[in-house]
Amino acid sequence: MNASLLRPAIYIAALCGLYLATAMFLPAMMDLYYGHDDWQVFALSAFMVGGISLMTALATRGAPPVFTKRLGFLLVNLLWVIFSLVGAIPLYLADHDLSFAQSIFESISAITTTGSTVLVGLDDLPPGILLWRSLLQWLGGIGIVALGLFVLPFLRVGGMSFFKLESSDTSDKPFARLASFTRAFIGIYVGITLVCAICYAWAGMNRFDALNHALTTVATGGFSTHDASFGYFNSIPLLWISTVFMTICSLPFSLLIIFVVRRRLDSLRDPQIIVFVGYLFVFSVALGVYHHLNNDVGLGTALAHSFHNISSILSTTGYASTDYTAWGPFAVALAFFATFMGGCTGSTAGGIKAYRFVVLFNIVGTGLKRLVYPNAVYSVRYGKAVIEPEAQRGIFLFVALYIFLWAVGSLAMTLLGYDFLTSASSVITALSNVGPGIGDIVGPAGNFSTISDPALYLLSVMMLAGRLEILTVLVLLTPLFWRQ
Amino acid sequence: MNASLLRPAIYIAALCGLYLATAMFLPAMMDLYYGHDDWQVFALSAFMVGGISLMTALATRGAPPVFTKRLGFLLVNLLWVIFSLVGAIPLYLADHDLSFAQSIFESISAITTTGSTVLVGLDDLPPGILLWRSLLQWLGGIGIVALGLFVLPFLRVGGMSFFKLESSDTSDKPFARLASFTRAFIGIYVGITLVCAICYAWAGMNRFDALNHALTTVATGGFSTHDASFGYFNSIPLLWISTVFMTICSLPFSLLIIFVVRRRLDSLRDPQIIVFVGYLFVFSVALGVYHHLNNDVGLGTALAHSFHNISSILSTTGYASTDYTAWGPFAVALAFFATFMGGCTGSTAGGIKAYRFVVLFNIVGTGLKRLVYPNAVYSVRYGKAVIEPEAQRGIFLFVALYIFLWAVGSLAMTLLGYDFLTSASSVITALSNVGPGIGDIVGPAGNFSTISDPALYLLSVMMLAGRLEILTVLVLLTPLFWRQ
Repeated sequence: MNASLLRPAIYIAALCGLYLATAMFLPAMMDLYYGHDDWQVFALSAFMVGGISLMTALATRGAPPVFTKRLGFLLVNLLWVIFSLVGAIPLYLADHDLSFAQSIFESISAITTTGSTVLVGLDDLPPGILLWRSLLQWLGGIGIVALGLFVLPFLRVGGMSFFKLESSDTSDKPFARLASFTRAFIGIYVGITLVCAICYAWAGMNRFDALNHALTTVATGGFSTHDASFGYFNSIPLLWISTVFMTICSLPFSLLIIFVVRRRLDSLRDPQIIVFVGYLFVFSVALGVYHHLNNDVGLGTALAHSFHNISSILSTTGYASTDYTAWGPFAVALAFFATFMGGCTGSTAGGIKAYRFVVLFNIVGTGLKRLVYPNAVYSVRYGKAVIEPEAQRGIFLFVALYIFLWAVGSLAMTLLGYDFLTSASSVITALSNVGPGIGDIVGPAGNFSTISDPALYLLSVMMLAGRLEILTVLVLLTPLFWRQ
Repeated sequence: MNASLLRPAIYIAALCGLYLATAMFLPAMMDLYYGHDDWQVFALSAFMVGGISLMTALATRGAPPVFTKRLGFLLVNLLWVIFSLVGAIPLYLADHDLSFAQSIFESISAITTTGSTVLVGLDDLPPGILLWRSLLQWLGGIGIVALGLFVLPFLRVGGMSFFKLESSDTSDKPFARLASFTRAFIGIYVGITLVCAICYAWAGMNRFDALNHALTTVATGGFSTHDASFGYFNSIPLLWISTVFMTICSLPFSLLIIFVVRRRLDSLRDPQIIVFVGYLFVFSVALGVYHHLNNDVGLGTALAHSFHNISSILSTTGYASTDYTAWGPFAVALAFFATFMGGCTGSTAGGIKAYRFVVLFNIVGTGLKRLVYPNAVYSVRYGKAVIEPEAQRGIFLFVALYIFLWAVGSLAMTLLGYDFLTSASSVITALSNVGPGIGDIVGPAGNFSTISDPALYLLSVMMLAGRLEILTVLVLLTPLFWRQ
């Protein structure tokens, strides 16, 4: 064990614990305002977590650490695990009959912005616990954007070194210093949340629902305050508004910042944005027309529902306006494959992600050309930039591990007694941080309340591995990492 | 259109047509011997195909062509399509109520050594047509070994350039000249078929069944003379014998040749053999123990069935000793994922294939090391040989296209009205040339007789694309290929 790594990692984790303890006062105040006893649970949790974090921070204070790659890997894993544990405390202590495994699952589902839930009867839950779930997703969203923008490119995980090169490109870098970039990001994140909440309220949600859904939309999380998710509101305008915001929040935040601050539209001409919006549009129209023809539904209504549900899956949010898997086998297949795909890198979306598909398309294209003209030189490009072999390998490494984890996880789920479709779809929806799967149990009309504790732990590991882009977790399991 | 390419390609195809016409006399004689009228169908087809082939060969005679890569690609596609069409002629003409699409599907399923069938009541069919199906598989097996050993490495398809390097390695090349290598291969292929037939007859099959099953075992094809496949014989020894032969025929034939001719055991220490036999063993034992525990079956019986069915899937043969998908969800999931995997390169097996998994494992291993020590140099290896980036890219290209075709094909099947599991499993079983899928329709207890004509055409394209390693087919669709 490497003590020089652990001290600063624990110190930073303790500071973050202090933030999370502070956040707990919000649901406490909400419950106090609505006169619900759960405020005591949140206040108690806040003091407990805050106290322990403060003491830990004091005990591990020291010279600022040299930020090495190893410290980076350790820190990322540590932060997500500790946040998940801390997030679970109020869920477990509040009297809603959640087992320990269920509390952990719900918290990890929140922090990783997955949105699968073990809770039933959301409509009747006290406001504090609902707000806590939404807040955890919103904070998890900040964490994941920070990870994608600042940490993973530095760690060169999953072919992301390309993004590092881009952000260090002097001619085009949006801000000179990290701090101002972070401020701009937080400003835009809060700004979109507020605009989204106002739009939701304008279209008919009450203020509490509007706030909660705005928090979980912007984080592409997908927790709702109603068991029927967006189906509860039965409103076409709300479906379109949520579609727009889910799509926006699947775009790279760095480009959104350039767009908002500099008013430069050309930043949106990024190849991964074009590909992402392209497949979102094609899938939604295809599913909408299929629903229209197959189930005798008006085209306008069919498209509103298909755009909402497809953008919910591709942005890895996980809302559902209805049980779209009942529309027919094409809907089931499309939902299944879309669950793998995801949004853009640098956003809150999960999945394999559009930029990897851009590079894969390019590799297929140049590969076919090379077969005909083996001696010609074709380089694999992302827009105008050349993707080096190392970054290409990083992408393949990620995709291969993604599919491998899905297969192993699915086999493990069947051994725990679940049918093949439930197993395969629950594992991929966890790994991609989407939310709903396929079938009666974990499909859009079901939830994870009947899933057994061992299966919940398995799915929790999948959610964390997917959220941290697998390699970040896996590298900690290599003996090489721990060698002095 | 490139005339200098087409003439020699058609000439060679016509010569192969002559061979196929000659082969049709075997089922003709069989039907004549057993006194069945179908002998006329085969004789007529033989004269028709033989005559057309002869005339075409005479018309396209000329100077021997320069064997370029383009000619190679064109020839491979042309040969498989023409063989499929010619193979379908007697099936369509014989009076068994097969539609044109069904005849084409059955023929392609044979030539590609897939083994999915649209025929029901195999037990009562005349011997000629049964023998013709088996013969087509056996000849298809020869074709695919020749493709894998001689053509694909030359065309550098799917990261196989590595195998080209190996076979041109002077210190280790098994034979100095192609012709003697081919003779040795045919000798071993015929030899294994005879030994297999003798073993089957010894263990209780009648001579006709033994011959047919030997032909389709060695080709890892999977056509049976009984609707119940190996379940008909209800014999544990036959399950083990078939397991041994299916496994042997999934090993690279070049190494088998070295093993038999030189008696050098070390040729079997090839990394892809170790990996293939490794996952075959692990999967079979896991499934056997699962079957034993889950269904209260004796461990010996359970293992005999699990080894037979897993080696049938992994060797992409497609026999079934029973409906293994009824053993429980773990059996369904394992069968599903095993359908992607396949045997060794240079054998008659399909799928992604073991050598690609060897390289993928290596890339994952070195990738993780690189994350910790970015400046250290780790090369990706296959055994002792270094896999160059171009070959690595070829492997990824293949795997990416494999999964892409599976997804697109599955979506198309659902649009034709099939449920998601039937769609997803029928497309992957076609692409991997395995045979049975999952579910009531295409599962091991079902067959393809109720599948609609459009779906049969779709699956036929998948079988051909999978058999020709996708890129070989796709490259013909690029405009670049047809440019002068």
